[in-house]
Amino acid sequence: MIIGVPVYQGVDLLDVTAPFEVLKWMDPKLDLRLISGKAGETIVARGGFKFLSSHSFDETPALDVLWTPGGDPDALKLIMSGKDQTYIKFLISRSENAKWVCSVCEGALLLAKAGLLDDFEATTHWYFIPCLKQFPKVKVCEGYPRFVVNGNRLTGGGISSGLDESLKLVELLTDYKTAQGVQRNIQYYPDPPVASTIPGADKCNFDFS
Amino acid sequence: MIIGVPVYQGVDLLDVTAPFEVLKWMDPKLDLRLISGKAGETIVARGGFKFLSSHSFDETPALDVLWTPGGDPDALKLIMSGKDQTYIKFLISRSENAKWVCSVCEGALLLAKAGLLDDFEATTHWYFIPCLKQFPKVKVCEGYPRFVVNGNRLTGGGISSGLDESLKLVELLTDYKTAQGVQRNIQYYPDPPVASTIPGADKCNFDFS
Repeated sequence: MIIGVPVYQGVDLLDVTAPFEVLKWMDPKLDLRLISGKAGETIVARGGFKFLSSHSFDETPALDVLWTPGGDPDALKLIMSGKDQTYIKFLISRSENAKWVCSVCEGALLLAKAGLLDDFEATTHWYFIPCLKQFPKVKVCEGYPRFVVNGNRLTGGGISSGLDESLKLVELLTDYKTAQGVQRNIQYYPDPPVASTIPGADKCNFDFS
Repeated sequence: MIIGVPVYQGVDLLDVTAPFEVLKWMDPKLDLRLISGKAGETIVARGGFKFLSSHSFDETPALDVLWTPGGDPDALKLIMSGKDQTYIKFLISRSENAKWVCSVCEGALLLAKAGLLDDFEATTHWYFIPCLKQFPKVKVCEGYPRFVVNGNRLTGGGISSGLDESLKLVELLTDYKTAQGVQRNIQYYPDPPVASTIPGADKCNFDFS
């Protein structure tokens, strides 16, 4: 099984590393790829964290699971509307035969731009819900779910949602018991030290066109 | 303010990236350092994720906050009992004037080895609680708290605990309202898709001496 995370400059760190951590506990030998234009390329995540991609787009002609991370709005705009459409084309072609097509945070906008959420229920980071609604064929879910499973699409809310979502992916790929094992290994019994509410967003504050 | 995360080969990925994500939302310009023997060195985290350190031990003579991550037991053993005691010496010297001395997961064992948890209440990953109890001066807390604040020591439970713990650190360094803002930005309203219990560990299954 190959799980691919196409990464890019300005990607959100936890959007990549939360599923990486969780999925590697499902199977330490899992072929989990951080994919970019060139294998071994340095990717600077939002906040300045530098990591290396493991594979190139070309080296990965097919995927069992596609995981699309969110990132800096400027980076999203470049992918969605820049001249170089390699990333979007990668999403389209590799999702064709994938068992699961996933996104976390504003990764949903990238899937939507690729037309991969047309007629599917989906969610994204709460602040970007109005942006996702700009894609008329996407059925954006009410509220702020941690993740949404619809057909073979799995979309997550903002950043930290990727933990709940990737644990769900473990269950979908294996079984409940295996997901429980991963939960124990990463001691995932969360209890945030502060409480707050999501204020909601009434419009999309970005122009991705 | 300088926050330093001394990293090493085999470090746990989320032990490093969860606080990185959270703390950078507190302040995008925060001087948050991934510290190793040589700046820019490639660190291979458990699971094979490759990232780059940002600073060397020598470049960082003082820290405001020390965050000590856990990792692969073989890696811990090498740090705790190997010939090269650079890492342990770094913990000791840089904690001297630090406002907060933190660990997540088995990072507590590294602090304990350095004598930095003597007479402090502390916790660690549930599976390593008996290992932490091998340090007689450490007051290991009952149960499996997400984190423990005692004096200027902040220690966390296993892996994912680092999210709750670093959000607490945000509150300790700033205020409750700022921590709420970070919670909103990373949409941290967790809801694990599976439920399980911690079985507990009756002995330390590793020899770190």
